[in-house]
Amino acid sequence: MSVQILGTGEHVPRRCVSSSELDARWNKPSGWTQRHAGITRRYYADAGETTSGMAAQAAEAALRAAGLAPDQLDCIVSACSVMEQAIPCSAALIQRQLGLGESGIPAFDINATCLSFLAALDTLSMAVDAGRYRRVLIVSSEIASAGLPEDDAETSMLFGDGAGAVVIGACAGEGPGRILGTHFETYGVGAELCQVRAGGTRIRPREDMQAFLDGACFQMRGRQTYRMAAQRLPAFIARLFERAGVSLEGIDRIIPHQASAKALTHLQALLKLPTDHLVRTLGERGNQMAASIPVALHHAVTTGRVKRGDTIALIGSGAGLSFGGAVLTY
Amino acid sequence: MSVQILGTGEHVPRRCVSSSELDARWNKPSGWTQRHAGITRRYYADAGETTSGMAAQAAEAALRAAGLAPDQLDCIVSACSVMEQAIPCSAALIQRQLGLGESGIPAFDINATCLSFLAALDTLSMAVDAGRYRRVLIVSSEIASAGLPEDDAETSMLFGDGAGAVVIGACAGEGPGRILGTHFETYGVGAELCQVRAGGTRIRPREDMQAFLDGACFQMRGRQTYRMAAQRLPAFIARLFERAGVSLEGIDRIIPHQASAKALTHLQALLKLPTDHLVRTLGERGNQMAASIPVALHHAVTTGRVKRGDTIALIGSGAGLSFGGAVLTY
Repeated sequence: MSVQILGTGEHVPRRCVSSSELDARWNKPSGWTQRHAGITRRYYADAGETTSGMAAQAAEAALRAAGLAPDQLDCIVSACSVMEQAIPCSAALIQRQLGLGESGIPAFDINATCLSFLAALDTLSMAVDAGRYRRVLIVSSEIASAGLPEDDAETSMLFGDGAGAVVIGACAGEGPGRILGTHFETYGVGAELCQVRAGGTRIRPREDMQAFLDGACFQMRGRQTYRMAAQRLPAFIARLFERAGVSLEGIDRIIPHQASAKALTHLQALLKLPTDHLVRTLGERGNQMAASIPVALHHAVTTGRVKRGDTIALIGSGAGLSFGGAVLTY
Repeated sequence: MSVQILGTGEHVPRRCVSSSELDARWNKPSGWTQRHAGITRRYYADAGETTSGMAAQAAEAALRAAGLAPDQLDCIVSACSVMEQAIPCSAALIQRQLGLGESGIPAFDINATCLSFLAALDTLSMAVDAGRYRRVLIVSSEIASAGLPEDDAETSMLFGDGAGAVVIGACAGEGPGRILGTHFETYGVGAELCQVRAGGTRIRPREDMQAFLDGACFQMRGRQTYRMAAQRLPAFIARLFERAGVSLEGIDRIIPHQASAKALTHLQALLKLPTDHLVRTLGERGNQMAASIPVALHHAVTTGRVKRGDTIALIGSGAGLSFGGAVLTY
């Protein structure tokens, strides 16, 4: 498919939270959080920073990078793990934040938790390739800090807030942009490994407030998730590369979901990659859920680690339990 | 685009709620709810009936109608207004309910509130046409009763629960299936007309429980919503028909979102349609949010009001404020 990434952008929330601040919060010895999480700092959304507001900031940066005005978009897709509010979809709120509330530009959400960005990139690339849309905004904006379990340091220390955005479009003339292949796998048997049980129709605060409060925070069975993901990742990656018609040697850079230091190290060892091959934003951002991949891509592009014509692989796993990947020529 | 609707299905929740039951609940004179809502009965999900469970029932019916086994699906898309729980996406839960938890079949959600089904049909049709997927399940399952404001009879009387499912696939040989055109418009200026402010990152129960409870129910400014929708609907429909290259005379049947009796009557008058032209499920189901359109389509197909080769238009408006439509040969 002939599709170009026209621009990328990031929004970093205002409040920087160092790992030493978290050591103090959890009464841990100095250096404990940094050592266990491999994260120096992460950012939390401040009062007044909303999912749609952060999304609009990242989107405006991506539009500037693409040399486009907001009203040149044909479609706006929100690809967040968690919505800003239950109704309407976050994309409508982002559209309004971008000053496009009277534009009529179609707006909807795609949700595959931490793989939302990849699912949206895959799906909307087909729409661009079909000529349906010329320029599509895909934006992932996450406020993980809204739902972290305060008494579970091992889980909470991993996450940070933030937003990443990408504008994709039809590849003009002989532009190099091309999606070589994408692949997704979901294993619902793992649905309970990573979950927020509340926030939907299942647990209703007016019927059982205690159950609601118990289910309102993110719960992760870390070890089991890691084990199931590690078990199925090699075959998944083989199928992704096969679909894309590439081998590892043909890939210039890998942009992984920044799940955890352990997950990144595992991926690097599994693929026997040189240190520099894997783009890491975890240490300065934490796991930003669906925003991790577009933020890491933005960093790779702006630091020159990914250049036009490079073949890159975006790869991740997420709640579901799901795996997703896209191999493309940037 | 060459895409066929292979099968449709519905799930009707167990608990039937008559309009006279609601008259009693709200201390209204006998016949008040029926007269004001134009709805005789609607169904509420019972204890144990979940979003994903109802979705799986509707999906199994659609698969039977299509003559397919669940494991012949290539992709599962949940197109619900409100999720079952915040994480993971509802499609992963539906996949597991269908006994496909070990299958690896990709699963993700598309959310455009009441237009979720249309947004998913539009987007996934392109994927089928591109040869990416052969058979895709799109299922809308709604438990509106979980979030109805008990003290607002005018809003609450409109809604009912339920699920509708469709399996789409590549059009085999000379099958008639074809998407003639689709069109979507979102006006974020109307984002506050229909909303559930809680249920996401914006209002957090552990920070402000009262604000959370105040925002946990569906709020609709009925008159303003109707006015804005009525104002913009004629131009929207003209653009939809233009994109599809059809005129009203070429359309055999219109399957609208069952927003309200007033909205259906308005659409019928606007298009100067004969009574039978518009498929109505409102009186026996209520407004089932995103499930309304697939349920109405299922009724039209199973009662013979839509036949192979017919040209039909699926049209709706929803929170956002958004408009969406698809014109297709069934």
